[in-house]
Amino acid sequence: MPVLDVNLMLAPSLPGVGLDPARLNGAMAERFREVYDDIEGRRAKGEIGFFDLPWASDTARRVQEMANSFGQCFENVVVLGIGGSGLGAATLRDALLDPGWNERDEEGRDYLPRLYVLDNPDPATVGPLLDRLDLRRTLFNVVSKSGSTAETMALYLVIRERLSALVGEDKVRGHFIFTTDPVQGALRRIADAEGIPTLPVPSNVGGRFSVLSPVGLWPAAMTGVAIDDLLAGAGAMEVRCRTHELAENPAGLLATLLHHAATEGGMPIHVLMPYGDRLCSFALWFQQLWGESLGKAVDRSGVAVHTGPTPLSAVGATDQHSQLQLFMEGPRDKVVIFLAVEDQGEPLAIPALHADTAELGYLGGHTLGELLDVERLATTEALRQAGRPSMTVELERVDAPALGALFMLFQIATVYAGALYGVDPLDQPGVELSKRITHGLLGREGFSAPSIGNADPRWRV
Amino acid sequence: MPVLDVNLMLAPSLPGVGLDPARLNGAMAERFREVYDDIEGRRAKGEIGFFDLPWASDTARRVQEMANSFGQCFENVVVLGIGGSGLGAATLRDALLDPGWNERDEEGRDYLPRLYVLDNPDPATVGPLLDRLDLRRTLFNVVSKSGSTAETMALYLVIRERLSALVGEDKVRGHFIFTTDPVQGALRRIADAEGIPTLPVPSNVGGRFSVLSPVGLWPAAMTGVAIDDLLAGAGAMEVRCRTHELAENPAGLLATLLHHAATEGGMPIHVLMPYGDRLCSFALWFQQLWGESLGKAVDRSGVAVHTGPTPLSAVGATDQHSQLQLFMEGPRDKVVIFLAVEDQGEPLAIPALHADTAELGYLGGHTLGELLDVERLATTEALRQAGRPSMTVELERVDAPALGALFMLFQIATVYAGALYGVDPLDQPGVELSKRITHGLLGREGFSAPSIGNADPRWRV
Repeated sequence: MPVLDVNLMLAPSLPGVGLDPARLNGAMAERFREVYDDIEGRRAKGEIGFFDLPWASDTARRVQEMANSFGQCFENVVVLGIGGSGLGAATLRDALLDPGWNERDEEGRDYLPRLYVLDNPDPATVGPLLDRLDLRRTLFNVVSKSGSTAETMALYLVIRERLSALVGEDKVRGHFIFTTDPVQGALRRIADAEGIPTLPVPSNVGGRFSVLSPVGLWPAAMTGVAIDDLLAGAGAMEVRCRTHELAENPAGLLATLLHHAATEGGMPIHVLMPYGDRLCSFALWFQQLWGESLGKAVDRSGVAVHTGPTPLSAVGATDQHSQLQLFMEGPRDKVVIFLAVEDQGEPLAIPALHADTAELGYLGGHTLGELLDVERLATTEALRQAGRPSMTVELERVDAPALGALFMLFQIATVYAGALYGVDPLDQPGVELSKRITHGLLGREGFSAPSIGNADPRWRV
Repeated sequence: MPVLDVNLMLAPSLPGVGLDPARLNGAMAERFREVYDDIEGRRAKGEIGFFDLPWASDTARRVQEMANSFGQCFENVVVLGIGGSGLGAATLRDALLDPGWNERDEEGRDYLPRLYVLDNPDPATVGPLLDRLDLRRTLFNVVSKSGSTAETMALYLVIRERLSALVGEDKVRGHFIFTTDPVQGALRRIADAEGIPTLPVPSNVGGRFSVLSPVGLWPAAMTGVAIDDLLAGAGAMEVRCRTHELAENPAGLLATLLHHAATEGGMPIHVLMPYGDRLCSFALWFQQLWGESLGKAVDRSGVAVHTGPTPLSAVGATDQHSQLQLFMEGPRDKVVIFLAVEDQGEPLAIPALHADTAELGYLGGHTLGELLDVERLATTEALRQAGRPSMTVELERVDAPALGALFMLFQIATVYAGALYGVDPLDQPGVELSKRITHGLLGREGFSAPSIGNADPRWRV
């Protein structure tokens, strides 16, 4: 079970800048009880579905069975999904599968399929991928809760035609599985009409909270991830957060401290910095979750607020040679959330070569795993000495239970943070305008195109 | 040649929020003349080397010859380099090589090598990669200007020992090429002692400005990129920016408008959002360049300023379903810089299937390339309607000349911005502390370890 360490947000460890623990134990703990009750209330009304996903064992069984049923028929699985429909699958792949999975031969993948996520209608990506894959041995998972996401539908149409030309129209349906709303939408209707297998996205689970639904579970199951372990980890964290005592609720502490930093501490930029490449995609998943949930124009009573923290992703040790300079010396507007991994697996010994060369000699006898962790400790301490707050989520190792717990921890923190900001963390009204304009520009019935492009040529240089 | 369109930063196109062009033509243009002279002065003193890299034809020839000399001896090239020593190579690979390059067979790569960048001493990445590659057919390019970067040196030691066990100590040198300082440092000494081939990083070119030096050129040349075209594009942009007239200098406009937005407009978060996957890595390269150059504790006279914008990377259309909600509705603290690509290559027709389904039917007859570009236009217009500024850098296509020009445009803008902020864009003093602590924790002679970790267990949840 991951541990959240918030000492470096607090005055005893970060004198002058950190928060007084008495305040955290006092007014902020009181406020958190209200937040907790608010969220429990919405949950009881059935508005927030992700809390219950770890316990949806029927769904998990169905996902696993459907994954098993494909056996080894396919050597490639391609997820067509954008935003929350793609990020979860990519995060699970990059964290839990052997690195370079798609470059490995069948044996190196334990005879499991490659996994691609097409999350962009970029012809420069899509064309070459379709040319390269043996489409006869490729299964496409079209993921769209609404069943009408323009980018995903466009990809579906392009691929469907290619498949049809290759395997014949009657066999096309065998290459698709749709993950969509259980009752409505275009994908649902097509699936019903053509007998394409489907998996449901529960109606009270939005895209960015869907990684533990079939949206993330099915691609994971297809590539051999133990989805029961993933859900068990998520469930354990969900249980862990069933308390209105702030000091005992890790999601509560995460939300409360980051909300306070953003709104009172002048630190609205929240950096997620895992140490280790496998969690890079998790940081991108967090960016969507935190940014899209909390970045809102109006509060829940409709008053204009234009609020929300800006999430930023980084990766250690790499970003010590990129973004760290700004984090250390720039404006005091950031909190860094480190993800630490205790057991790195095979640590890789650094040999004592060039022992007489001062710049290299001291490295011999250590391991790469040790170096990576020492760099994390050093960066944490350097930030502390510079008076810059941070917190750390410590994982024992990067495995399915830890990932499940991490997803749940950050999801719960996000809805708590929504309550603290006073906004609805479950909607995303700000993305509708560009969708409408896109529809207008493409000539969709009922949408109009604005006039664009009376740019002054003098300001085109 | 890329075109910078800044209309959507200005009042005529962005009423109430945009800048009055008269001010840009007046006081800001005047200020820019000083900035230009300041930078030209530093350049004349030999302090800023990157301007001259397009004209270093001897170096380019040497790089190309050295790349040619390896012929088809190696099927893998692995760059060991962190920060500016790795980002340039990864950016060039992802932008200019066919997508999925490393997954392709020899024929799909035109018999050119795969290209990996190891930019993190993460054993979970390094071990499996070394296990998977045929090291007998792998060439390692160790890139470190100082010749003492801990992470890179550790990787070098691990790999050297593996190679030695595999091919014998006498053949190890044939698997390395060092890119480092032309006269000093540990790598230089080892190369001289052992006869390992080297390429120089000019002493007046820092890591994050080094992509057009052998640091970026050699990996590019090894994988068939026309480095002459890259340099020609960079050179053309360098020439283009040889004017102190703000309205004619794209780098000047970029720097001036972003500096103004950050310091007077309350918009210190600068989002680089290419439309297209191939430029994703370019956005990470920009993040280092902009963040590490401008995020500084003190100005050039030593006064504490703690300044600098926060660069953020995004990718369209994908991030319309992730970060866009925050950009549209959150705090008015961001400027989005779009990268648009006119010619997407093979545009991929969207077939008119499911024509009777309203949610899909309108897509038929368009292309993926058109969809991607329409989405960009729609997002730009949506931001404008929300009163949020943006600018666009328009590329004809993603090719070597365009990349060269882009690198140069942003590098020049960065040193101009440094002058506007009053900081030194060429140093990075803030990363030294964590390096010293790392050395101390690893027991390097002359460094001491701080005591870390008296964390209060009550705040570990």
